[in-house]
Amino acid sequence: MLENIGYLAAVLTTFSFLPQAVLTLRTRKTDEISLIMYLMLNVGIACWLVYGLVRDDLAIILANSVTLLFSLPILLVKGSNKLAGRE
Amino acid sequence: MLENIGYLAAVLTTFSFLPQAVLTLRTRKTDEISLIMYLMLNVGIACWLVYGLVRDDLAIILANSVTLLFSLPILLVKGSNKLAGRE
Repeated sequence: MLENIGYLAAVLTTFSFLPQAVLTLRTRKTDEISLIMYLMLNVGIACWLVYGLVRDDLAIILANSVTLLFSLPILLVKGSNKLAGRE
Repeated sequence: MLENIGYLAAVLTTFSFLPQAVLTLRTRKTDEISLIMYLMLNVGIACWLVYGLVRDDLAIILANSVTLLFSLPILLVKGSNKLAGRE
């Protein structure tokens, strides 16, 4: 039972970035999305990934690879909008 | 060294939601923010909190309390904008 709550928690927090990635890639609008948030988040997830790889912890590697897959496109769209002076 | 990468990862991912919370509370604009993302994220973090409380794991309890503190206001502003028909 408790393990199931843990799995549910992991799946929900990991995949929560998928709908935001879909929305951002579709609309390309990011004025209300915080650049600092996605910079911190992506660097943080990359650190988790390094941590998991060095410790050879498959759960940490898997969860953070999936999260990075969704959160990196959001950062890239936001960054390119910012650099191009579109916001 | 590896432990430091773990702590850095935890601090960055936990506090990444703070700048988004500040931005969203200040502007109250959430058109480009995904409701499904913040629903999944907040329920997921609440599950992590339950998991940490039952397992009496202070690191999980602390990290997820802080994240919830930042992510819940974003969900509430988004939800109230949606319910009020402002977007």
